[in-house]
Amino acid sequence: MAGERTRKQAKAPGERELIAAIRLRANHLASSGPKEGILAFGIGDDCAVLRPRRGEDLVVTTDLSLENVHFRRDWHPPQSVGHRCLARGLSDLAAMGARPEAAFLSLALPSELTGSWLQGFLDGFMALAERHRVPLAGGDTAKSPPGAQKKGGLVVADIVLLGSVPKGKSLLRSGARPGDVIYVTGSLGGSAAELLELGRRPARGAATTGHPHLYPEPRLAAGRKLMRRGLATGAIDLSDGLSTDLAHLCDESRVSAEIDAEALPVDGRASLEQALHGGEDYELLFTARPKTVVPRQLGGVSVHAIGRIKKQGRKPLVEIARDGKRTALAAAGWEHFRQA
Amino acid sequence: MAGERTRKQAKAPGERELIAAIRLRANHLASSGPKEGILAFGIGDDCAVLRPRRGEDLVVTTDLSLENVHFRRDWHPPQSVGHRCLARGLSDLAAMGARPEAAFLSLALPSELTGSWLQGFLDGFMALAERHRVPLAGGDTAKSPPGAQKKGGLVVADIVLLGSVPKGKSLLRSGARPGDVIYVTGSLGGSAAELLELGRRPARGAATTGHPHLYPEPRLAAGRKLMRRGLATGAIDLSDGLSTDLAHLCDESRVSAEIDAEALPVDGRASLEQALHGGEDYELLFTARPKTVVPRQLGGVSVHAIGRIKKQGRKPLVEIARDGKRTALAAAGWEHFRQA
Repeated sequence: MAGERTRKQAKAPGERELIAAIRLRANHLASSGPKEGILAFGIGDDCAVLRPRRGEDLVVTTDLSLENVHFRRDWHPPQSVGHRCLARGLSDLAAMGARPEAAFLSLALPSELTGSWLQGFLDGFMALAERHRVPLAGGDTAKSPPGAQKKGGLVVADIVLLGSVPKGKSLLRSGARPGDVIYVTGSLGGSAAELLELGRRPARGAATTGHPHLYPEPRLAAGRKLMRRGLATGAIDLSDGLSTDLAHLCDESRVSAEIDAEALPVDGRASLEQALHGGEDYELLFTARPKTVVPRQLGGVSVHAIGRIKKQGRKPLVEIARDGKRTALAAAGWEHFRQA
Repeated sequence: MAGERTRKQAKAPGERELIAAIRLRANHLASSGPKEGILAFGIGDDCAVLRPRRGEDLVVTTDLSLENVHFRRDWHPPQSVGHRCLARGLSDLAAMGARPEAAFLSLALPSELTGSWLQGFLDGFMALAERHRVPLAGGDTAKSPPGAQKKGGLVVADIVLLGSVPKGKSLLRSGARPGDVIYVTGSLGGSAAELLELGRRPARGAATTGHPHLYPEPRLAAGRKLMRRGLATGAIDLSDGLSTDLAHLCDESRVSAEIDAEALPVDGRASLEQALHGGEDYELLFTARPKTVVPRQLGGVSVHAIGRIKKQGRKPLVEIARDGKRTALAAAGWEHFRQA
């Protein structure tokens, strides 16, 4: 009955199990993690404690992952949900040129998911965390409330990532200048193409390679090389899609841009439309002065020049040259799941 | 129709409005905020950038606030939801002796709440943020997904707080020693008592004083004084209730505790049971060596000695002396809302 209150253990059994399960996995990571990290104290107090290095900035990002908005339980295996949750935050760090230092996870689950689904989620989350040596330093948990019909609680995961960058060296969206060349890492559209496939035939198993949608690889090594070598004038990660994220970069830099359709590294299974607007590729988009020699590979991933930064004028923010014609490229992304 | 996908603007109108509304309010705060803060760059890039001071640690906490778990829309005005969301995080900073430096808010709302409800939420959130001079430095937004019956999306708010403490001076749960005196700030049980009232007669208006449940006051000034003067051996904030949080402190310090029922500062409208187990009072619980002179007031709030730390033995973690008898005090909190 709504409004009835009862005394009980402060944490419901589901929530206590949830905390215990996460703390167990987090401790495993912390003990195998790098000694040179700045995390002084993780889970177990009112706050985690970080001890920043002298001469370094800290960068912070948070990303929500909501069931039926960012993933669907019938399409995405729990390993993928955990991986993608962390990958979203790590990709933001990559776009700043940062080194990951600590992750915090706020997780709400319906009671029926605190068993094997949670273990799968943590498998995916922790595998990616260990590969990038980022400790899980804290967070919060709750039991998902039922919806209006008192059934069907949904998964909510909010990820917080902290990273370090030498003071003042963060890659920003605001540094692109007219004349700069525009680059992207990897290939584009693969995530949207795989998502379309998932709608037809949901994933089974937990292979993590060759799945740009289910298991995207945040470009941390490429981002750090860009930062260390001072190659980039501006940078952003491709989460909303090339057309949208390039417009964000132009907005913050007060410039416009032109890209060449034929120069785009379109994923083998994707269409040009998916490469332009697909979103969730988690590649890096960056700009560099025309004289800068940008390697063809950075941190193990290919790099392609795809266009050029222009002065901001009356024309649209982003134009695309295709079949010898220049047209405006509207900022448009894919809506993942539309429910009638 | 589930699974149908359509191209559209990457951000739905509701979400773009949401971001715009929040960014507007955040900018107002940032421009009126303290110049001495460590936030170098807030909303507008892939990450926020903080420039930690030399010789200081950073502490980090995250807290979920879920509709129908932590609040009810028919009981809590939006101003209270915003205030409580931020207060939960600030109270964790208070328990470390930290100074707030930056807040990050991840907020998911159903479309029908992006108008006046959101403005009320931000009113409550920002009023508390400005009082404690903490800038809103970033976050994430989403449209709440409908539940299983495709209606009734719920409010999800995850708050992240970063604070600074002189290196190694954070107040921890793990420092209490046998013989230490146990103290609490303010009074206990008022939040539980007011919550019970709300069930009978939901709140109207937005008065923020005299409402320990709707508008709890995080004890930041008291926490910083404890830290600066080196008074406390251990500290925790009272979010789950005295019986539960004292057990947490004992756990982390590997000690046990005895409290005196007659010494408890029970709120005028609350019962002893509510003071012991009520939760969400957001007062500070701390311990100090018996020789330490602890003032009766700290940072504008009263301080009461309520018991003593003992060696950990075979007996229960926490005992209570009442009417000349000593009994075990089970860690028990209130479940706020129970839905059949």
